[in-house]
Amino acid sequence: MSKEITARSEDYSQWYNDLILKGGLADYSAVRGCMVIKPYGFGLWEGMRDVLDAKFKETGHQNAYFPLFIPKSFLSKEAEHVDGFATECAVVTHHRLMKDPEGKMVVDPSAKLEEELIVRPTSETIIWNTYKDWIQSYRDLPLLINQWANVVRWEMRTRLFLRTAEFLWQEGHTAHATAEEAIAETQQMLEVYADFAENYMALPVVRGVKSPAERFAGALDTYCIEALMQDGKALQAGTSHFLGQNFAKAFDVKFSNKENKLDYVWATSWGVSTRLIGALVMAHSDDDGLVLPPRIAPLQVVIVPIYKGDEQKAKIDAKVNELTAELRKAGVRVKYDDSDNNRPGWKFAEYEMKGVPVRIALGARDLENNVAEIARRDTKTKESLPLDGLADRIVALLEEIQQQLYNKALAFRDDHITPADTIEEFERLLDEKGGFISAHWDGTSETEGKIKELTKATIRCIPLNNKLEEGTCILTGKPSTQRVLFARAY
Amino acid sequence: MSKEITARSEDYSQWYNDLILKGGLADYSAVRGCMVIKPYGFGLWEGMRDVLDAKFKETGHQNAYFPLFIPKSFLSKEAEHVDGFATECAVVTHHRLMKDPEGKMVVDPSAKLEEELIVRPTSETIIWNTYKDWIQSYRDLPLLINQWANVVRWEMRTRLFLRTAEFLWQEGHTAHATAEEAIAETQQMLEVYADFAENYMALPVVRGVKSPAERFAGALDTYCIEALMQDGKALQAGTSHFLGQNFAKAFDVKFSNKENKLDYVWATSWGVSTRLIGALVMAHSDDDGLVLPPRIAPLQVVIVPIYKGDEQKAKIDAKVNELTAELRKAGVRVKYDDSDNNRPGWKFAEYEMKGVPVRIALGARDLENNVAEIARRDTKTKESLPLDGLADRIVALLEEIQQQLYNKALAFRDDHITPADTIEEFERLLDEKGGFISAHWDGTSETEGKIKELTKATIRCIPLNNKLEEGTCILTGKPSTQRVLFARAY
Repeated sequence: MSKEITARSEDYSQWYNDLILKGGLADYSAVRGCMVIKPYGFGLWEGMRDVLDAKFKETGHQNAYFPLFIPKSFLSKEAEHVDGFATECAVVTHHRLMKDPEGKMVVDPSAKLEEELIVRPTSETIIWNTYKDWIQSYRDLPLLINQWANVVRWEMRTRLFLRTAEFLWQEGHTAHATAEEAIAETQQMLEVYADFAENYMALPVVRGVKSPAERFAGALDTYCIEALMQDGKALQAGTSHFLGQNFAKAFDVKFSNKENKLDYVWATSWGVSTRLIGALVMAHSDDDGLVLPPRIAPLQVVIVPIYKGDEQKAKIDAKVNELTAELRKAGVRVKYDDSDNNRPGWKFAEYEMKGVPVRIALGARDLENNVAEIARRDTKTKESLPLDGLADRIVALLEEIQQQLYNKALAFRDDHITPADTIEEFERLLDEKGGFISAHWDGTSETEGKIKELTKATIRCIPLNNKLEEGTCILTGKPSTQRVLFARAY
Repeated sequence: MSKEITARSEDYSQWYNDLILKGGLADYSAVRGCMVIKPYGFGLWEGMRDVLDAKFKETGHQNAYFPLFIPKSFLSKEAEHVDGFATECAVVTHHRLMKDPEGKMVVDPSAKLEEELIVRPTSETIIWNTYKDWIQSYRDLPLLINQWANVVRWEMRTRLFLRTAEFLWQEGHTAHATAEEAIAETQQMLEVYADFAENYMALPVVRGVKSPAERFAGALDTYCIEALMQDGKALQAGTSHFLGQNFAKAFDVKFSNKENKLDYVWATSWGVSTRLIGALVMAHSDDDGLVLPPRIAPLQVVIVPIYKGDEQKAKIDAKVNELTAELRKAGVRVKYDDSDNNRPGWKFAEYEMKGVPVRIALGARDLENNVAEIARRDTKTKESLPLDGLADRIVALLEEIQQQLYNKALAFRDDHITPADTIEEFERLLDEKGGFISAHWDGTSETEGKIKELTKATIRCIPLNNKLEEGTCILTGKPSTQRVLFARAY
C-alpha cells in the first residue's frame, strides 16, 4: 500500500480522517475550522449537486442568489431563530484595513460599519425580508426558490465535512398561501432527499420528524432523514422545515388571498450540505480506502494497462480505445490511466484508496486470450471476463455494485434498530451495539434532556411510518403511545 | 406596455437599471452594495457558468473550493496585492453576538478573534498558502484549478451587476514549472474568454494587455478582453494574469525540477464574474427591454396561444405539443405560455421585456391556414410561416439571430475605434463619439494618469494584434512605437 490507513477497529475517527485526507477529498486550511475541498472531493459534490438540482427543477423550483451578509437586526426579528444562531457566527464590523505607523496592516477604526453584518449561517431572514417585496397576492404564490451557497457557523469543534465553520449547501425557501400547501412542500422535499440518499448514495434513511428540542430554530416542525454510520452512530443527512407563519410575521409578509383578504404567508425551508460527503464516506468505506457508489462516483471505471515495451502498449491502447468509446457512449465515467510515472501496483492501490467502483487491468497475455481482469472495489473480488461484450457487462456490474452497497447498508441499519424497554437495557445496547434504540418516551423536552445527559443519546426522530403502541417512558415511567428512535449522533 | 422603461437617449444609466429590475434579473437588497440575483438573472448566470465550466474542463482544469476567509496576515504577504485590496474589504473581527442588559443583540466583546479575517476579495493568498503543501516536485505540475465562488470588495459606488460589494465569479489559479508554460496558460484562458464572449454572448472583444497602471495587484502582466457598450463606454469583460513567481515567493512555494534543483513555481490567475451579465444587457438591449443572444438565453422560444373558448384552445394545444416536442428534441429551450391569468398582449410585452429571442403566436385562424406568426426580438420583425417544417426553421432562425446580434455589435464596435493624433482631437472624439480612441502614448504611468485626469479616459489595453507604427505621444510629444486603445469605461 502506498498510503497507510488506520483500521476502523483501531480508531474509527482517525480512519475517517485518513480517508478524507489520503483519498484526496479535502484538506485542512489555515483558517480555523474551514477546509479546502480538493478536486476529487469537489467532483463528488458537483455530481451530488447536479442530481439534486435536476430534482429541484423537476419539482418546480428555480435557483436564485441572496446576499452573503445579514444585517444584525434581521437575525433578531425571529426570537427562536436568533437564539439558535447568534452565539456562533462570524461578525463583520469594519470595511477597511490601514497601515499603522510601523507599516503593519491593522483594522482602520474609522471604517466601522454603522450596523454589524453577520455572515449568513442560513438565509431565512434576508430572504423573507426580500419576499416582502415580491409577494402581494395569491397569484405570486407559491414562490419556489432554491439557493446553492456557502454558509458559516462558528462551531467550536470541527471535523472535515461533518462539521466545519464554513460549508457548502443548498437552501430551499418557499412561500405558500396555505398551511396545507406548505406542509405538502416540506414533505415532498424530504422525499426528494430520501430518494437521493437511497438511490444515489446507496444510503438507507429513516424518514421522521424531530422532537421539539431538536427542531430548527424558528420552525414549527422539522422533518429529517437519519442515516446510520458503520460505527453505530447516527447522522442527520437532510432536513426540511415547516416554518408556519413565523418568518412572514417577523418580516411582515402578507398577501391578499382569493377572497381579497390579507393573510400572512406560509413558509418552508430545506437543506442538505457537504456533510453528505462525510456520511457517504462513513457508510460504505473500508480499511483499504474509500468505497463510492457508482451512481455518484466521479470516476466509475479505471483501466490500467500492463505491458512491456511500446509494441505491447500499442496493441493494448487500440483495444482500450474501443472499450472506452463504448463505455462513454453508455454514459460511463471512465479513465484510462496509461501514465508511465507509476507502476500498475501503485495505481491499483491508488484507485482502491479513491474508491473507484470497477478496475479493469489489461495485459499483453490477456489480450491474446481476449479477456481482461475485472476487480470490484466493494467486494474486492476479481474475475477474468471476455473482452467481447465487456462494455455491456460493466454497465450491468455498476448497477449490481450500486444495489449491493445499498443492500449491505440496509441490512446493517435494520440490524441496528433495537427496542429497549428499560433505561438500563437502553444504556447497555448503546454501549455494546450502538445504532438506533427504539424506546418509549414521555414526550417532554425535560426527559429528553435527562436521557441525553445520562447517555449522550438524543432523539434522532419520530419515524413517519411509526406504529402506535402503548408503553411507558424508559426514564420516567409515564405513559407513551409510540416508540421513538434514539442514537448517539454526529 | 405593462412596464415603462426609460429611453436610452433620455438617460442611459436609468435605462440600464430599468432593464435589470423590470426584466427580473436582479433586485436591490437590504445590505449596502449587495444585490439579489433573481431567478431569471440567475438562469442566465447558470447558462454562462455551464458553458465556461465545460471549456475549463476541456482545457484540463478541475474545480475545487477554498475558504471564504483570508487571515489578515496573508493579504500582507504580497506587497502590491495588499495595497490593491486592503482599503475595500469586509473584516470579520468577532465570532459571537450576545444580548445586552436591555435584551438588544450586540457583539460579544469577549469573542474577539485573535487575528482578523478578511472576506476574500480574490483568493491568490489563501490558495498559494495551500499550494505550498500540494507542490513538491515537477511531477505535481502543472496544477490546474478553478473555483466558482462569491467574493466581496467594499466598493463605494455600486451598480447592479457592474459593480457590487459581493459578486459571483470564477477564479482559475494555476501553477507551472516554467514562465513559458505559465504565459501560455494565461493566453489560452484569455482565448477561452474571448471565444465565449464572441460566440455565446455575441459580444466582440479586443484582446490585449493592460498598461502597468491597470494591472492586477501582484501581476507581471494582465491580459484582458475589452468590450464596447452602446453608450460608447468600454467594459473589461475578463482578465487573465501572469503572476510570475510573486505569490510563490510570498508563500514560499518551491518545487524540485527535473534536474532536482529547487525553484519557485510560476503562477497564473484568471476570472470572469456576474459583471458579464451587465455587459450583455448593455451591448444588445433596446428601449423595449432586454435582447438576449439565443445561445445563452434561458428561454429561446415562447409560444403564446390566441383563442376563444376551450374547443379552439384544445386544437391549438395539440399542435403546440407537437411543435414543442420537436423543438425540445432539437435542444431548443421553449415555453408554452397558456396561462389564463394574462392576455396575449400582456404576454407579448412581458417576453419582449425579458428578451426572449423568438415568439410564436398561434391563433385559431392561423391553425386553419396551417401557419404561425413568428416575431424576432432582435429586429422586431414578424412573419407568417407554415407550420410544416417550422421547428427546423426556428432552429435556423435562432442561429441567424445569434449571428445578426454579433454582426451588429461588431459593426458598432469597429465604427467606434477612432484614431486621434492630438489631445484636442482625442477629447473632442471622446465627447462627441465615444468608443475606443486609438492614440500614441509615451509608455509612462505618469502620462497615463494625466490623460485620465484630463479626460476620464484610461488605457483599456494594448491590443495583442497591434501593428508597430512610429508616432508621438498625444500628451507629451515623446516618441512612441504603437497606438494603444483609450476609452471611458465601466
